[in-house]
Parts: sequence; C-alpha cells; structure tokens
Amino acid sequence: MKEAQVLGPLFVKGREPTMNDIITTILNHRSIRHFEDKPLTDEQIKTIVLSAQAASTSSYIQAYSIIGVKDQEKKKKLAELAGNQEYVEKNGHFFVFCADLYRHTLIGKEEQKDVTQSIESTEKFMVGLIDASLAAQNAAIAAESLGLGICYIGGIRNNLEEVKKLLKTPDRVIPLFGLAVGYPAKMTEQKPRLSFEHIYHENEYEQSMATYLQQLREYDELISDYYEQRTGGKRKDRWTAQMAKMLENQSRMYMKEFIQKNKLDLR
Amino acid sequence: MKEAQVLGPLFVKGREPTMNDIITTILNHRSIRHFEDKPLTDEQIKTIVLSAQAASTSSYIQAYSIIGVKDQEKKKKLAELAGNQEYVEKNGHFFVFCADLYRHTLIGKEEQKDVTQSIESTEKFMVGLIDASLAAQNAAIAAESLGLGICYIGGIRNNLEEVKKLLKTPDRVIPLFGLAVGYPAKMTEQKPRLSFEHIYHENEYEQSMATYLQQLREYDELISDYYEQRTGGKRKDRWTAQMAKMLENQSRMYMKEFIQKNKLDLR
Repeated sequence: MKEAQVLGPLFVKGREPTMNDIITTILNHRSIRHFEDKPLTDEQIKTIVLSAQAASTSSYIQAYSIIGVKDQEKKKKLAELAGNQEYVEKNGHFFVFCADLYRHTLIGKEEQKDVTQSIESTEKFMVGLIDASLAAQNAAIAAESLGLGICYIGGIRNNLEEVKKLLKTPDRVIPLFGLAVGYPAKMTEQKPRLSFEHIYHENEYEQSMATYLQQLREYDELISDYYEQRTGGKRKDRWTAQMAKMLENQSRMYMKEFIQKNKLDLR
Repeated sequence: MKEAQVLGPLFVKGREPTMNDIITTILNHRSIRHFEDKPLTDEQIKTIVLSAQAASTSSYIQAYSIIGVKDQEKKKKLAELAGNQEYVEKNGHFFVFCADLYRHTLIGKEEQKDVTQSIESTEKFMVGLIDASLAAQNAAIAAESLGLGICYIGGIRNNLEEVKKLLKTPDRVIPLFGLAVGYPAKMTEQKPRLSFEHIYHENEYEQSMATYLQQLREYDELISDYYEQRTGGKRKDRWTAQMAKMLENQSRMYMKEFIQKNKLDLR
C-alpha cells in the first residue's frame, strides 16, 4: 500500500481505490515533456513492443503497426510537423502507432479472396484504431513500469501527408499518434479528471440533464481551483470553457479526405 | 523475475524481455471466457474505472464514457445481440466503453460557441475512439492486476441500434466494445502474435515486399504448428488464410450509416 498523496489531484474527490503496484503505476501517470538525453536500449524497446503486442486484438486481426524512429533528422522533422514540440525530437525513443490494414490487403491478394469491401468499411477502420490504441496503452504502462516517462503526441495528425512521406507508410496505414518515451528530466503534475460519477454510468446513460450539467459545474469548480492553486491565482480557467474554445477552433479538418485517400473508412 | 514458461507461446521466437511484475501481467494476458458466478465489489469497479480515467486523453478532452451493466435482463439481451456470447451475461461485471462527444456538444451550447463542425469531424471521431480505447486498456490491466480475467466484446457492434436503445445513449455517443470482467473459471491459452520484426519497423515502414511476405509465411508456419499441437493434429489453419476468410465475409457494413446518423465522422 502506497500512501494516498502520491496519487496527486486525480483523486481529490475519490475514495482511495484498492491498491497494488500496477494500479499505483497506472494512477500515477502523468505526461512527461522533458527527457534526459539517454536513448532506450534495444532490449527496452523490445520489451515495450512485445508488451504492446500482448494486448487484445479484434478477432485476432492485429490491425496495427509500430514505427520506431531513431533517425535524428526524421525526429526533428516530426517535431516540426507536430507543432514544434521539442520532446518529439528529444527523448529516449519515439514510437509511431499506426492503424494498419495494408497487410490484410496483401493477404487478400495472396489468398485470392475479395477482402476490399470489408477493409474499406468504417467498421474495419474502427478496428484498426482500437487495436492500435490498446497496443499503445500497453506500451505506455510497460514503459512507465520501467521507470520511464511517456507522452502521447496527437500532433503528428497535424499533417499526415508529410508524416506518411517521412515514414513511407503505404495505403491503408494511418499513423495515429506518437509516443515519446524516455527518462524523465522534469516531472509534471497530474490534471484532475472528470468525476467518476460523470464518466461511469450504471445500466444506462445518465438521463437527467440536471444531474449531468451539475456534474460538469462541480468539475469546473475543481479545475478552476486547481489552476488557481497551481498558478498562484493567475489562471482561473474552467474545463468547459477550455473545451468550448478548443472545439470552436476547427482543426485537422482534412482528416476525412486523407483517410479516404488512403482507402479506409470509405463505405 | 518470473520464469519464462509462464509467458506462453507469445514468446516462442522472442528474446526474453526485461521483466517486472507489471510487464509479467501484461505479457501474461489471455482472454477469459468463463467466469465464476461472483460479482465484482463496488470498490473493484471503482478502482477499475479510476484506472481507466488515469489514461492519457487527447488535449484533455476526455471524449469517452463507460457504462457498467448490472441489470441481468440487460446483460442477457446484450449477450444475445453480441452473437449469443454467454460470457457477456455471466461474468463479474460488464463494462461498455463508448466514444462520447455528447458532453462536448452540450458544453458548446452552454458556452455559446459553435463546436458542431469540429465535433462532427473525422478527426474528433478518431479522438473519441482513441480516448476510449486507451482508457479501456488501463481498465483491463487494472482488472488483471487484481487477479481478475477480462474479455473484450466487439460483438456489441453487431447491432448498435439495439445496444443504443438498451443503454439509452444519446447522439454523439457510440458504444464501441464491451469488457467482461470476472474471476476466471477456466483459463485459456495465449495465441502467438505476429513477429516483433513484422509489427515493429525502424525509421520507416518495411519497403521490401519479399521481407514482408516472408515474415507472414514464417508466422503462418508458427500458427499452423500452434493449432496442430493444440488440437492433436486436427486443425492446421494458417493465420493469413483465417484472416482472408474472415475479411471476405463482410460484416457490420451498416456502421458508416449508424455513426453518421449519430452525428459523428460526418465531415
């Protein structure tokens, strides 16, 4: 049993959960954005990838690939593409997780079966995304269990045409996000999550609008206090305001066209 | 250090990875399809959900919800909808993970910001899927760390119209998969994964077709041996043949229409 305070503000309002070392590692997660200049060993990389591969996969389809980027020029370019995020370039290793139905397309040809309709369906696009994400989270937990820090990099989706060229991914492979891994040089704080009651519904989705909105208001108060404390009173942002502002700004609106040009999510 | 043989056939061809208890748990995963008749406690459920919530989330958006189904009638109905999978009904607890941009739609209204274009984009649909999947895999690992078994249930996507009615999910909420959790009553074997070399690419996606196809052939041999050994020579299936057959059979082709009717992935 670790002491409750190691858990950070995630659990301000929660009851202390049943603990073990694995759950402590999971609950202790924070995104790390400053890494030591120390590359992962090949053995660490292999451990992380094998952990990713151990995740569940829809009907054994294994519809994902992982590209590990070691080449410094490529990393630099990826960092620029991701919106000048320095930690994409400076880390212990940079993984890119891709939804991948390319191998299944080849298999269809080899086996002389018409798999095209199926591969181009929204369903299989979803399978690729889910498979890749389950694998990635296993990789993240495995890395953290080795004392490494991680940060997901959705920023690579800013410009997937360029990322695709850089990583030479064929059609039916969609780079989804990066995972920067390395030895933490600077710790970050955890940001409090939505309440358990708001995320978790019993038997059916919350039907009371009053309850639903009240939960969001209470969360706003929590977040507002959190930012205020963290910034010595300078920032008083609410989560809902932050989200509305972010979503008002349309981003990556080219995505549908890109995915369909890469022959997924077509039908 | 645990002994290598606990790892099962996943690692027949791999070097033994760096081990700790967390990585052992991850590598030891197998889907459990028979559970004891013993419900999870509320504390276990809370621990699993809080673990899910600790996962990374794209730009803090938290675009997912979890519905825990306790009602036996609903579980029975879900089991039927998932293709008469008994373990959907008989387990310790049944979670449904959903991509959720409903709360963000409400927030847009409350904050008087036009968030519709953004929420209806393919990019945000992907964010919802990724967020929900990262959370789910944390839940799965947390459950396994508590000595519980898990099985993902993609079968709920057989008929999402009915699942939506049953769980009363509003527009912009897509139930993605179930997660059956409980005390294992019967262990299953692990199925060997694609080789590390086939899943993991360095610096760029594998460009040699010969190498790529050779990896698939070697994997087919491994899988063929695996089925043969497991069935005393009765089954000699290759993975590529299995995949081609599965993908030739078009399934869940209504998905695009369903997602778009629920106002996601529209633009």
